[in-house]
Amino acid sequence: MRAFAHADEALHDPQFFLMRGRLRANFEVPARAASLRAGLVALGVAPDAPPPATRADAARLHDQGYLDFLASAHAEWAALPEAGAEVVPNIHPAPEMLAQTRTTPAHIIARTGQFTADNACPIGPGTWAASLSALGCALAAADAVAAGGAAYALCRPPGHHAYAARAGGHCYINNSALAAQRLRDAGAKRVAVLDIDSHHGNGTQGIFWERKDVLTVSVHADPARYYPWYVGFAGETGAGENLNLPLPFGTGDTEWLAAIATGIARIRAFSADALVVALGFDASEHEPLAAVRVTSDGFARAAVAISALSLPTAICQEGGYAVDHLGPLLHAFLGAWR
Amino acid sequence: MRAFAHADEALHDPQFFLMRGRLRANFEVPARAASLRAGLVALGVAPDAPPPATRADAARLHDQGYLDFLASAHAEWAALPEAGAEVVPNIHPAPEMLAQTRTTPAHIIARTGQFTADNACPIGPGTWAASLSALGCALAAADAVAAGGAAYALCRPPGHHAYAARAGGHCYINNSALAAQRLRDAGAKRVAVLDIDSHHGNGTQGIFWERKDVLTVSVHADPARYYPWYVGFAGETGAGENLNLPLPFGTGDTEWLAAIATGIARIRAFSADALVVALGFDASEHEPLAAVRVTSDGFARAAVAISALSLPTAICQEGGYAVDHLGPLLHAFLGAWR
Repeated sequence: MRAFAHADEALHDPQFFLMRGRLRANFEVPARAASLRAGLVALGVAPDAPPPATRADAARLHDQGYLDFLASAHAEWAALPEAGAEVVPNIHPAPEMLAQTRTTPAHIIARTGQFTADNACPIGPGTWAASLSALGCALAAADAVAAGGAAYALCRPPGHHAYAARAGGHCYINNSALAAQRLRDAGAKRVAVLDIDSHHGNGTQGIFWERKDVLTVSVHADPARYYPWYVGFAGETGAGENLNLPLPFGTGDTEWLAAIATGIARIRAFSADALVVALGFDASEHEPLAAVRVTSDGFARAAVAISALSLPTAICQEGGYAVDHLGPLLHAFLGAWR
Repeated sequence: MRAFAHADEALHDPQFFLMRGRLRANFEVPARAASLRAGLVALGVAPDAPPPATRADAARLHDQGYLDFLASAHAEWAALPEAGAEVVPNIHPAPEMLAQTRTTPAHIIARTGQFTADNACPIGPGTWAASLSALGCALAAADAVAAGGAAYALCRPPGHHAYAARAGGHCYINNSALAAQRLRDAGAKRVAVLDIDSHHGNGTQGIFWERKDVLTVSVHADPARYYPWYVGFAGETGAGENLNLPLPFGTGDTEWLAAIATGIARIRAFSADALVVALGFDASEHEPLAAVRVTSDGFARAAVAISALSLPTAICQEGGYAVDHLGPLLHAFLGAWR
């Protein structure tokens, strides 16, 4: 299998994470990519480094004002008196405010709140460059499979929590969504995104909410107890082609694979011509939060089941924070891909 | 002049404040109340301690689900694994989420994001009790002036950033708004709120947005560069009885008093029967942020101008964070009240 990775991922090295009222070290660190690369090496796969994507590539699905923000936020922030090292929101425009204002925010503090959902997407000096390099990998994987086969993109930062105009949950540019769009643009009439990260792919759902040409399926831990908290519940169907399969906390291989099988059946029924797998390893039993408890064998069986669709498939890395386990899990998943 | 203060304000002792990506000590501290009390003593005013308000009093304008949250948030939070000492949001429901969800949040983390606007309203073990004591002071001041005269309420925490169902900016229960409602309920046909805190009274605007019986006037620093960032601009008129008078940064006494005069003229034109002054001292030249640079004499002249309305007036303390200056500024303001 072809794989794509770019050294610029390491330019994004977030420090800050506010969780349950405490400052913590951010989970989404460059060491994740090193572990995943080791998994590729163990498989005998040498990843190519594609050119970084361009801003125009991101604008295929993202809002221009949002991309302006991502590109310049850190420099604007650094010019504030007594600013911290990373762009972090401390206020967001509440619905009551949005209903009453007559003004578009211009100040960096206001735009930070406008364009982020949470405190888990700090923007550092290298975030924009790393995001474009991650997108470059996702688009290269899409291009590599347009005529068939599967390819893997080591995307860091991940992307599935990013909306068209909003960062969140370690994500800035939605790599999986843009890979799906790339497959559409290359000729696939109907594309499916199967998201098996343990968190709901809310950004992807949001981006394709009104679309009938892209099916979005997400298998994830119950958002009543887990990020993204407000969406990811069953019954959020959009224009008809969104399927959420939330799972109770503590779910193991059997139920997780059953949900994936439900998603696969829906993808068959949708008659997808191409597939994007949003591949998170945070459903692993080794994760710190361990909302879902999938074994290495479970991931291998998921790969067998998904690859049996025999669709052109771009596999985009999403989350997974048990750093030492990421390489072995990627080895298990890609090694089982048929 | 009668004054009201309650020792329970000290139960609210917030520690946490995330500003420009750095953790800071919270500005809204019990020492503020001590300084304000000293100002009363210097005036020869001995404040009465009214009974704390009840939840039903707060529910006159606040949402029941929001009050449930305020009352139990800290206990629910403390039961979370590895929770910090204060309830602090790290995510809010973005508009895209609200548009897609089919579920009302139940988890304390989700409700914290739902019911707060920002990181400047941490909830500690004593926040609810202190909030009810602050409201008790505001309502006692309203009751004391229903038949005429003026009274001062030392409200801590302050209230003018609190919406019907959302805390923000050091505020939880909107004391000034509830004092205005109390005056209405006591028979005043038309009540005005004149907010001279340096921050826009966005919660008060929000609460009375559709009302024609309560005029809300706010004189404050330009929100394009200042909290609350998204609202407080000219042209936000609601049902017709909201007037925002944003001022450029660095404004001094002359322009500030001119804006207050504009507000007073509007209050006269509205034919208000009663008045609430939302009194912040953060327009002082001594403030750390010093967005507006009003002198002690400026505050005294404001009191002269406002008291010339000769309306029953409940004066509710809002912000002001230059602790050592608060007592002298209160002395200047109340001492000049005619």
